[in-house]
Formats: sequence, structure tokens, C-alpha cells
Amino acid sequence: MATNWGSLLQDKQQLEELARQAVDRALAEGVLLRTSQEPTSSEVVSYAPFTLFPSLVPSALLEQAYAVQMDFNLLVDAVSQNAAFLEQTLSSTIKQDDFTARLFDIHKQVLKEGIAQTVFLGLNRSDYMFQRSADGSPALKQIEINTISASFGGLASRTPAVHRHVLSVLSKTKEAGKILSNNPSKGLALGIAKAWELYGSPNALVLLIAQEKERNIFDQRAIENELLARNIHVIRRTFEDISEKGSLDQDRRLFVDGQEIAVVYFRDGYMPRQYSLQNWEARLLLERSHAAKCPDIATQLAGTKKVQQELSRPGMLEMLLPGQPEAVARLRATFAGLYSLDVVQGDQAIAEALAAPSRFVLKPQREGGGNNLYGEEMVQALKQLKDSEERASYILMEKIEPEPFENCLLRPGSPARVVQCISELGIFGVYVRQEKTLVMNKHVGHLLRTKAIEHADGGVAAGVAVLDNPYPV
Amino acid sequence: MATNWGSLLQDKQQLEELARQAVDRALAEGVLLRTSQEPTSSEVVSYAPFTLFPSLVPSALLEQAYAVQMDFNLLVDAVSQNAAFLEQTLSSTIKQDDFTARLFDIHKQVLKEGIAQTVFLGLNRSDYMFQRSADGSPALKQIEINTISASFGGLASRTPAVHRHVLSVLSKTKEAGKILSNNPSKGLALGIAKAWELYGSPNALVLLIAQEKERNIFDQRAIENELLARNIHVIRRTFEDISEKGSLDQDRRLFVDGQEIAVVYFRDGYMPRQYSLQNWEARLLLERSHAAKCPDIATQLAGTKKVQQELSRPGMLEMLLPGQPEAVARLRATFAGLYSLDVVQGDQAIAEALAAPSRFVLKPQREGGGNNLYGEEMVQALKQLKDSEERASYILMEKIEPEPFENCLLRPGSPARVVQCISELGIFGVYVRQEKTLVMNKHVGHLLRTKAIEHADGGVAAGVAVLDNPYPV
Repeated sequence: MATNWGSLLQDKQQLEELARQAVDRALAEGVLLRTSQEPTSSEVVSYAPFTLFPSLVPSALLEQAYAVQMDFNLLVDAVSQNAAFLEQTLSSTIKQDDFTARLFDIHKQVLKEGIAQTVFLGLNRSDYMFQRSADGSPALKQIEINTISASFGGLASRTPAVHRHVLSVLSKTKEAGKILSNNPSKGLALGIAKAWELYGSPNALVLLIAQEKERNIFDQRAIENELLARNIHVIRRTFEDISEKGSLDQDRRLFVDGQEIAVVYFRDGYMPRQYSLQNWEARLLLERSHAAKCPDIATQLAGTKKVQQELSRPGMLEMLLPGQPEAVARLRATFAGLYSLDVVQGDQAIAEALAAPSRFVLKPQREGGGNNLYGEEMVQALKQLKDSEERASYILMEKIEPEPFENCLLRPGSPARVVQCISELGIFGVYVRQEKTLVMNKHVGHLLRTKAIEHADGGVAAGVAVLDNPYPV
Repeated sequence: MATNWGSLLQDKQQLEELARQAVDRALAEGVLLRTSQEPTSSEVVSYAPFTLFPSLVPSALLEQAYAVQMDFNLLVDAVSQNAAFLEQTLSSTIKQDDFTARLFDIHKQVLKEGIAQTVFLGLNRSDYMFQRSADGSPALKQIEINTISASFGGLASRTPAVHRHVLSVLSKTKEAGKILSNNPSKGLALGIAKAWELYGSPNALVLLIAQEKERNIFDQRAIENELLARNIHVIRRTFEDISEKGSLDQDRRLFVDGQEIAVVYFRDGYMPRQYSLQNWEARLLLERSHAAKCPDIATQLAGTKKVQQELSRPGMLEMLLPGQPEAVARLRATFAGLYSLDVVQGDQAIAEALAAPSRFVLKPQREGGGNNLYGEEMVQALKQLKDSEERASYILMEKIEPEPFENCLLRPGSPARVVQCISELGIFGVYVRQEKTLVMNKHVGHLLRTKAIEHADGGVAAGVAVLDNPYPV
């Protein structure tokens, strides 16, 4: 895929002037991060890294990604309600992966006690890359679906103005007009607002479970601001705060600092290092409560890579979405090749990966980016894992190889840098279910992130991928 | 004037949580300053200091200040066209004040050569305080009018959202709705756009004369962004750039880097230290050009304190605005007591000020804040100046004494601080004249700045006053 901006990328002086304008516009629009030096304070901030130009994305793939989002919402929701499927799918993983095991323990405890939650809220983001094919037409391939703490909906709402600015400075008014408007923060807030409303207690609050050190707080504040505009109040607390100040009443209604909580929105709790023993207890307390958790623990488990791999097995989608052959077809069309490393099925997959390492990526059961293994590293890991039961906690995935293109990456403290890049497209999905009735199911916007091809993995916050906008072609 | 927020200011913990929310909202809205450590770079930025709460302002005074703004626009424009008045008024000042003398020299040179400029653009800000009176009803008293580089129109456009946020967090929804919308950056840009349009060359640019070190760049960018949205392109250059790259053609059209300039917008050049010899030459070049200068040098001179003092003399307004008795009455109602220290008139004024120093302030012919003398300092200065010709470059002004009130000031790196404050209200005015025809005359928004009463003088950028919003009562 060629870019429109080829000649623009050649003039160093013009790039630097454009970069200054783009950075000032990004700052003014609130495309902000706290600094790595002061991640607990907003006294001094910087801009979130971004591309100088929007990156070209085929309209057909954008449309396809939007069209399948409601199917993914349904699928995640179906998985989260299917305790037997979750137990069977994760049985080998939880033997090897302590984190998944602890989540699963809470899931089981809550099931045993009886689920007090009646309103279910899913805010997820399905991520894709564009696999190049022999005939030159790229294909949409899902990388993963994030069912907890899916981030950058707030900042992505602020970036279209930045790329419109850059193109306007270049007198590319028509092109500037093609940058899609995007407001996931509003859509995510609408989902939270609906769950809050269905909870039905006008004085109850939204509890955002926050990290103490949070560089990406402005992404979260964008959603908080949308809620405040609807007179829904948000309090930010850490797991530690909850373990000190959280309690359930006899109806398992959740109270924090004496205030009733209608919705718990997790922006923490997706990685092992985020849990002390105290934090696991706080998570259990929240999970047992009547409040709408986003996500509840079953939905978090539905987002594991092992579930993703299991969903790609023949017949699974049909079982989970009975009588919906069109949804099943749309979903399956986005699946990349996914292989279990379970003892039963894994030997052949490992052999194939060792024979052609460049075609595969090895993924452990981890969220947050930066954990995947490629190439020689993957080969070494597979050789080590081959005869170990630990291999059940990994999945093997066909490596998506998009066509690289040129763009210019802007990061605080670094000069503007023109590099070969690839992009990852995310679509935000929102659904709300009350008991067994689906009340809301929609897509609410997108996120394009772009990284230099020397970086094989990682998210924006990890300092690898940067914010971008799709330029539809 | 009591505040509404009295009880809210007592709870330290609530204040700190509110302050965190307010700061994050201010940052997200683009209420930004570059840091004092890195005033040439936007890699790391901070928020512009502001009050946690809006400050109470009587509606009647707000309305009065808005209502008189078009009169002030007319008055400034009339003064700028009255060469005889300017020469007579400033004759004693230019003997003593080198800066005014140099400006005046350029003014004379341009008059002698013949004015090539045909489109005149005024962007000014008239500043007021609220003088407490015996009967308790405060009165609007003008402090000064800024006819060059009047700043904070950009940031003031972004602050209403911050105070609405604070009041919404406190569930003061009705109060939040009373915060006035404000968009001076749009209005100032409309003035520039009109001047650009009348200049009549579709490819010509707007030239913003910028300082190399500019912490307040986001205030300026807000106006640039409004112009870009109208497909009017702005280039930022220093005086040094102009002296290297600026030129006039045979019709005195201005070119910079080969590009024609329709409008020159000064955000530099209002203080002596901003002018090297090279910069004075650049200023002369700009002034001689056909481009619309904002302001032209006569309009800059019209904003001097000596002119302000002269305008308060009986009959002057009537001479400058003949046949407009209502405008004259509105203007005069806002004048504080102003006294010349010229040899002819000054002795009595000095005697009065020495007898009651707390009732006066001594102002040198300077812009930019921080130059005024009060109390014992004023007494010493007056004693020194008494027998010197230098006294002609000062004016003596009745000291405006507003009723102090409590608010909480937020500054990067300082804890939230509840202090006794006073406010200064500015109204932005815009006018455009083509030859002798006034094409636009309007007010375009306001700026409220608030400072702790231990600070007697100074602007926001000087780290003294902070951004605020009027809460009309």
C-alpha cells in the first residue's frame, strides 16, 4: 500500500515545521500523557506519541471491522455466560498459568455463591492487522480482543483534529475532510451511563479502578468528563483503597467510603504484577457485589488468548452463536490461523512453527503488550517448551504480515523520524445486558496505532506503537 | 462582595481532590503554558495557573464593560488617526522616554513617506477593576487599554469548561450553567480574517511576529487554529527573521521568504528589551509596508498611558468623538482619576499623592506588567522625580481598591492555596477599517484574571495573576 504523502516526507525542514505545528495542536487538543518521570502527577505533561500523517487504510477493511464488531460483542457475551465452555477451554491453561488460575478461582467462587450482578457491561476493543495476500488485496485479520481496560478511546477521540490540522497546513483541504470523525470516549461513556441507569440508584457512583502510577490518565479522564456531562459522578480508587474502604451490605450492594457504587470500570487488574494478595481480595469483593463490573471476571476470561484459539476450532462459533450463520461467517473471516499447544493437538503445530518460524508468533497468556515471541526467540522457547506441560499456557498464531509504508513518528524528546511502519486497527464495542436481555450492542469508534517495523510488538503506552488515524482509500 | 464558595474553601481534602480534577481538565482543554525551564519547546508543558472557582462579578458591571467596548474601539481608532493629538500629547513623554521616542520616530517617518497601509485592524483589550464605593455598589474603573499583543484571548476561550467541570463535580449544575461561554480567540481571528480578506490577495499570509522564547504559545496557537479553519495560513517569525528575510516591493507590498503578507499580527514589540537595533529596523520595514499591521504604530502609541491620561482631561473625548455624546458619557463613566506629572499640571498632583500615598499609583510608560509603584516606593520615586524632567514620562492614577474575596489559586508545583484575591476584567475589542470606512466594530469576549492581594501588580504570564471566569451575580 503506497502512501499519499511520499513527497512530503522528503523535505526535512518542512517536516520539522509541520511537526512543531502538529505537536502544539496535539497538546491543545488534549492528546496528553503524564511523563515517565512523574507518572503520578499532572504538574508537567507531554503529548502522547503520534504519527505526523494519517496512514492509509482500505475503506472496505474499515467497514468490515465495524460490521463484525457487534458479532464480537455477542460472542464475548456468550462466552462469558457459558461456564462449561470457559472451564473446559481454560482447564489446561490454569494448571500452568497462575494468573489465569486466580481469575478462574474468583469466577468459580462467584458462581458458587450465586451471581449478585444483574447488569452486565462490556467495553471491548477488537484489534486487527491487514495481512497482505498474493493478489495484493489486504485482508482483515484479528490479532486479539481486549475485554478489560481497552484503552486509548479517549485520546483517539482527540487525534482527528491533529491530522486535519497537518493536512490543512499543507493546503490539502479535501484530504483533511476525509479524516474520519471519531469519538469512542463518548460511546464508551454511553455504555457506562446505560449500565448506571439500569442499576437504578440515582445517587450511586461509577468507580474507576485506577493505577497509582498512570501516565495515560487523560485517556480515562475523557470518559469521566463525558459521564460528568450526564451528571454521573466518577470516583477513582486503587485496589488498595477498595480493600481498605470497600464493603458489601446484606444485599451485596457495593459501598466505597460510604457511597453506593453502580458500575465498576477496571483500568487496572489485567496483569499479574497489578495484584498483591490484598488486591486479589479487593477484586473478589468487587466481583461478589451487585454492581455492574466492566468487565465481570467471566468476561475478562473470555478475552484470554486460549479462548481466542479455542474459538477458531471448527464448530465452536456455531455452538456459541446458534442460529446465526451470518454472524459466524463474518467472525470467522477475520480469524488468523490459531493453534493450541496442548498435548493432544500441539505437536504438529510446534513442528510446523520450527520448520517455518517466520510464519508464526508464540503468545503467552498475557495482556498489556510486549510479551510475544518471534523468530529465533520463538524457536528457542518452543524447543524448551516442547516437552513441558507449561506449553499449554501458550498459543501459536499465524504471523500477520502487513505491507509496510512510510510515515513520520513524533515522540517527546526525539526528532521527527521517517520510518517504515505497520498499523493495527482497533474497533471499540459496547454492549449492556440486563439479566438475559441485551439492551445495547454497538460499535463506538476506532483506534489506529502505528509502529516502526523494527518493533514487532507492544502498545502505545509501552513506547512502541503511536496514535494514528486511518485515511480511508 | 462575598463568594458563593465560602464553605467549599474550608475542606482541605475536598479542595485537593477538586484541584486534581480541575488541573486535569485544564490540561485536557488546552489551558497550557510552556515551562519556564524550556520556553522555546513544547516537548513538556504545564497548565496556565488558574483559580479553582470562578469569581463573582456583578452582571451590571460585565454588561457595562461590554457595552463600552465598541466606544473604546472607536476612540483608539480616532486617536491613531489624529497625528496632531498624538504629537502634542506625547511631546513631553518622548523627551524623557527613549522607547516611546523610537516608536514615535517610526510613526513620523511613515507619515512623511505616506501611509501605504489601507486596511487597519485593531485587536485590543480594555482592562477594569471594580472600585468599592461607600454605598457598597462597586463601580467599573478602567485600568488601561492594551492595543498591542493583548493576550490570553486563546486560553480564556478554554477556561469556561474547567469551571463548569468543578461546579459539576460539586453537583452545582445550575451554577455550572451560569458560567458564561467565551470565545475571544474566534473573534480575534474573525478580525484578522476580515483584514486579510480586504487586503485582497488570496495567496497572501498572516505573519505573526513571535518571540523566540514564548511560554504563552498555546494562547497564540488558538488564534492560528481558528484562521487555519478558514483556510488562512499563518507563519510565525521573529523580528530577526524579518530583518533577514523580509522585503518590500515597489508598491511596498511585504514579502517574507518570498511569500506575500496580508496581515502582520504583533505578539512581540511592546517592551524596550524586545528591540535590538536590528529589530527596530525590522519594525520600520513592517510599518512602511502595505500590509495591515495589528496594530500599526499609531495605534500602539494610542495605547500609551500618557494618552490614557490625556483622554481623561475635560473636552478631549468630545474633540475626538464629535457628535457622539452617549459614547463619550459611557467612556468617561469608566475613567479613574488620572493626573499628568507634566511641569504645568503636575505639582498639585504630586502634593496630593505625597499627602495620601495609599490613594494613588505611579505608572511609568511601560507595557507588560510589573512596573507600577505603590505606597512607600511611590513616595520615594515621587520625591526623586519632583524636580526632574523625567517626571513627564510618568502618570499618576487613582488607586482602584476592589473588595477582596476568597478563592483558591492553582499553580504548577505549588499546593492549592486559599487566599484573599482581587480580580481584573478585560474585554476584547476588534475593529477593521478600510481607508476611512469602518468595516467591523465589535466586542468578542472577556478575560478575568485574579490575583492574591499581596501582589499589587503584574499579569498572568508574570506569575502573579491567574486565569479565572466571571460568575455573574
